[in-house]
Amino acid sequence: MKNLALLRRLVPATLIAGLLVSAGAQAQFRKVDDAVEYRKAALHLMGAHFGRIGAVVKGDKPYDKAAVEADVAVIEMMSKLPWPAFIPNSAGGHSKAKPEIWSQQAEFKTATEKMEGEVAKLSAAAKSGDLAAIKVSFGSTGQSCKSCHDNFRNR
Amino acid sequence: MKNLALLRRLVPATLIAGLLVSAGAQAQFRKVDDAVEYRKAALHLMGAHFGRIGAVVKGDKPYDKAAVEADVAVIEMMSKLPWPAFIPNSAGGHSKAKPEIWSQQAEFKTATEKMEGEVAKLSAAAKSGDLAAIKVSFGSTGQSCKSCHDNFRNR
Repeated sequence: MKNLALLRRLVPATLIAGLLVSAGAQAQFRKVDDAVEYRKAALHLMGAHFGRIGAVVKGDKPYDKAAVEADVAVIEMMSKLPWPAFIPNSAGGHSKAKPEIWSQQAEFKTATEKMEGEVAKLSAAAKSGDLAAIKVSFGSTGQSCKSCHDNFRNR
Repeated sequence: MKNLALLRRLVPATLIAGLLVSAGAQAQFRKVDDAVEYRKAALHLMGAHFGRIGAVVKGDKPYDKAAVEADVAVIEMMSKLPWPAFIPNSAGGHSKAKPEIWSQQAEFKTATEKMEGEVAKLSAAAKSGDLAAIKVSFGSTGQSCKSCHDNFRNR
């Protein structure tokens, strides 16, 4: 607590908040590899289930309301998990994370929140059972994924 | 349909059911690697969140009802995902899956259902907010994981 008081005098409040969140998140992962594998796992499942809806949107698979809702439920849960796993110094190695994730933290947060917002809309569309609405929302969700990948993920 | 009728005359009904389920599941994965990565992702997240509850059970982390409930929610969803991804001929390579998964399908299914049942109890305990009940249920869930790993996963 004494250190925290000292820290507050030295650095802006928003930055302290960032440091504290990072320290909390970091505590969930014993090693950098754990954090990388964790976020890759969540993002992989998100992509896999998004792809399943994609097959319906493209007409390669018949539309099944319950199946799309189940896929969106996985996407929705997964969409919240990866971000605390982007702990400091966890780029490189098996990770495709760009250093911009840490040098542009506000932009990265905005991008992830944009995606979470689109997923919420996709979830509403899936629950409504309106395939046309699902198609529209699938497109804008995909765009939010792509935009974040373009800016924050190496190829 | 004609082929299915022929198949029914040639092989036992339970085996046909198995084949049909496998074919349906297989269609979700374009390549064996996709299936392996998918099930590893789900099992990794299950393990990671189980470990977080483990830290509470061991007293390394203070008990926070909402956090444990959130961890169990991830475990519960993940506990249902991996099984259709154990498609035929998907052992070996990066997978630790033992051939017994396919040669003892009934036993494997029983083991996964046992685990899902234990997770349901863990979920009820987490919602009750009774840490003693969580500890008991954590132990029996962990036992169901271990038992399945002992029989069906290479080290």
